[in-house]
Amino acid sequence: MVGAGQLARMTCPAATELGVGFRVLAASATDSAARVWPGVRLGDYRSLDDLRGFAVGCDVLTFDHEHVPGPALTALEQAGVVLRPGAAALHFAQDKLAMRERLTKLGIACPRYAPVSDLAGIERFAEGSGWPLVLKTVSGGYDGKGVWVCASPAEAAGVAAEVARRGLRLLAEEFVAFGRELAALVARSPHQQGAAYPVVQTVQRSGICREVLAPAPGLTADRAGEAQLIALRIASELDVTGLLAVELFETPGGLVVNELAMRPHNCGHWTIEGATTSQFEQHLRAVLDLPLGAPGLLAPAVVMANVLGGTDPDVYDRYSHVMAADPGVKVHLYGKEVRPGRKIGHVTVLGGDAPRLRERARRAANFLRWGDEDVE
Amino acid sequence: MVGAGQLARMTCPAATELGVGFRVLAASATDSAARVWPGVRLGDYRSLDDLRGFAVGCDVLTFDHEHVPGPALTALEQAGVVLRPGAAALHFAQDKLAMRERLTKLGIACPRYAPVSDLAGIERFAEGSGWPLVLKTVSGGYDGKGVWVCASPAEAAGVAAEVARRGLRLLAEEFVAFGRELAALVARSPHQQGAAYPVVQTVQRSGICREVLAPAPGLTADRAGEAQLIALRIASELDVTGLLAVELFETPGGLVVNELAMRPHNCGHWTIEGATTSQFEQHLRAVLDLPLGAPGLLAPAVVMANVLGGTDPDVYDRYSHVMAADPGVKVHLYGKEVRPGRKIGHVTVLGGDAPRLRERARRAANFLRWGDEDVE
Repeated sequence: MVGAGQLARMTCPAATELGVGFRVLAASATDSAARVWPGVRLGDYRSLDDLRGFAVGCDVLTFDHEHVPGPALTALEQAGVVLRPGAAALHFAQDKLAMRERLTKLGIACPRYAPVSDLAGIERFAEGSGWPLVLKTVSGGYDGKGVWVCASPAEAAGVAAEVARRGLRLLAEEFVAFGRELAALVARSPHQQGAAYPVVQTVQRSGICREVLAPAPGLTADRAGEAQLIALRIASELDVTGLLAVELFETPGGLVVNELAMRPHNCGHWTIEGATTSQFEQHLRAVLDLPLGAPGLLAPAVVMANVLGGTDPDVYDRYSHVMAADPGVKVHLYGKEVRPGRKIGHVTVLGGDAPRLRERARRAANFLRWGDEDVE
Repeated sequence: MVGAGQLARMTCPAATELGVGFRVLAASATDSAARVWPGVRLGDYRSLDDLRGFAVGCDVLTFDHEHVPGPALTALEQAGVVLRPGAAALHFAQDKLAMRERLTKLGIACPRYAPVSDLAGIERFAEGSGWPLVLKTVSGGYDGKGVWVCASPAEAAGVAAEVARRGLRLLAEEFVAFGRELAALVARSPHQQGAAYPVVQTVQRSGICREVLAPAPGLTADRAGEAQLIALRIASELDVTGLLAVELFETPGGLVVNELAMRPHNCGHWTIEGATTSQFEQHLRAVLDLPLGAPGLLAPAVVMANVLGGTDPDVYDRYSHVMAADPGVKVHLYGKEVRPGRKIGHVTVLGGDAPRLRERARRAANFLRWGDEDVE
C-alpha cells in the first residue's frame, strides 16, 4: 500500500488477521501506519524511482490516497507492476473533470459543471445555475481542501486568482440544494465479483466528515438499492478493483453523485466493528482477487464519529474517562500528532437505538477532542 | 508483552486501535507476532538479563505464556518492574500443585489431587479414586502436553519414569467424569474493576481445544453466573491483573475447576468479532489500568474453531475456497509454519442458529486443515 496514513494503519489489522504479506510505503517512520507495522519502506510517493523500488517483490500495489501522479502510475503499469485499482481507473479519482465527463456520458446524475479558468468563465457558468456556486480544484483536494462554496463573483475571483497562482485547474459546479449526504461503498475484484455495503448517511461540517450513520436512517429500500447500483455500475464501468466509495447528495429530484474515492474511506470506518467484513479486509480481499466477504451489518444500527484534534495535544489523558463513561464505545486513535481540526481518530458504537447511539458517539468524540467542543 | 506467539499477534490489532505503545519480546524475527509488529525485541524469556533489557522504557510487562521462570519474575518485581499479572499471581498459573492447594483452601471445587513421585505413590492415590487417573507435570504443560490419562498402573509407571527422567514434578488427579467442558473468562484491573465474558463451552480432542461455543448452549443462567463468580473470585483472591481464563468441568455434581491461565486464551478468540470488547483489547485495558470494555455478545451465538496444521504445508492455497464457500466466515491465520496438529489459525462465525454456525465453522476449519480431515 502506497501511503501510510490512517487508512493504511487500519488495513494492518486486516492483513494480520488474513495472514497476508503487506508492505507500506511511508514518507516517515512516524507516519500513522508506520508506527504499527514492520513492513515499512520509506520513500516519496511522487517519485517513480521510489515507487518502482517499493513495488519489487509485491504482487499487487494499492493506495491509501489518490495523490500518486498519473504519469508515475502509467509508467509502473508499463513496467509490469500490477496496480489495483489500475491507472485508468485512478484517473477518474484524481481528475474531477474527467470523472464528471465520464459519469455524465454514462447517464449518471451529477451536478451541472464546467471547467473554468477565470472570473469571466465562472460568471458565464453562473448564468446557468446562479449563486452560490462551488469551485473545486480538478485534482489534489481532500477533506474540504480544494473546495469552495462561493456566494458572489468577488469571492469566486479570490479563489480563481489563488488557484491560478498555484498553477491548478479549476472546476465550477452548481451548488446542489441537497437534503442530506449519503455514501455507497462497494468492492469489486478482478474476477468481477461485487459487494455492496449498506448505504450510509454522512454528516459533514466545514467540508469534513464528522459522523456516519449506518444504515442511513429512514432511507427507503428502493433508494438504497439505487445508490448501491450506481456505485456498482461506476465500479464496473471504470474498471475499479478494490473499494469504491461514492458520495451522493440526496435531493428532492433524486440521487446526485458528488465525489468518488477508490480506497478505504471514512464513510466505511463503521464496518470495523459494525459489518461482518470490514472495509479494510474487503479492500485487501478485492485487490488480492480473493472472494469478497459478507458486507452486512452486525447490529440494527452503527454510528461512527470522527475525532478531530482540538487545542489540547494530549488526547490520551482523557481517554480513560471516555472508556469509563461508556464501556461500549470503540475508540480508535491513529497515533497522529494532535493539530486543531485534524482527524486523529474515531469512535464507533453499535446497537438498536440509532438516535441514542449518535448521542453516545458524539459525546465520546467531543470529549476526546476537548477544548473545541462541537455544538450543533 | 513477553512472548510473540499468536496471542501476542492478536494483541497487536488491539494495540493499534487503542493507539497505545506496545512492544513484544520475541525469540525470533519469524515468531507469529514479530511478523506483524514493528516494536519487536529479540531475546530469551528465560534470561533475566534479556527480560530486564526488554522492560526498560515499558510501563507494564505482561505475558503471552506462563513460561517465564518464577525467580526471574520475582527479580523483575524487586527491580521495580511492574508485572501484570504479578509474580505472586502467576505462580498459581505456573504451578498446578500450588493452584490446587490454594483453590482447595478457598473452598472452590477441584478434582481430588495429590503430588506423587513414583508408581507407589500413584497406586496409593488410585486407592481413593480408582483408574483411569490423570497425571500432570506440576508446571510447563500446555495444549495437552504434560497431561496423561492413564488407564493402568503400567501406563502410569511409564509416565512417572519419563517425567522423573526429565526432572519434573508430578501431580495425580482423579479422572473427572464430566458432561462437558466450560470456560469462564474474566478481566480484572489494578483498580479492581472486573468484567466477565459470557461462559462458553469448549470442545477438546486429544487435549487440544478444537471448538468454542459462545454462549455455552443450554447453560442455565444460574450455572453461568456461578462459573463467572468462581472466575471473578479466583481473580480477586489470587490478585490477578489482566485476563483470567478458568477451564471448568461441568459434572452432575456441579462445576469443578480444571485449569487456569492468566492471559488471553483460546477460549476467548471468539470475542474478536463476537463481543463488544475483544479479549485482547480487554487484556490491554486491564494491564494498563484503563476502564474495562463491555464484554457482551454481538450476536445470539458465536462459534470458533481452531485450524490445526495438516499434511499440506501450504494453507494459503485453500484459503480462497473457504472464503468463496462462506463469505461470512472470519479466517485468522497466525503466520506460523504448518506442522501437523499445530494451531495455525482459527475461524469464527456468528449469527442466530448455533448448530448451523458450528457446522460452518467446522467445515471451514477442516477445509483449511486438509489432508487430515476431522470426523467426529
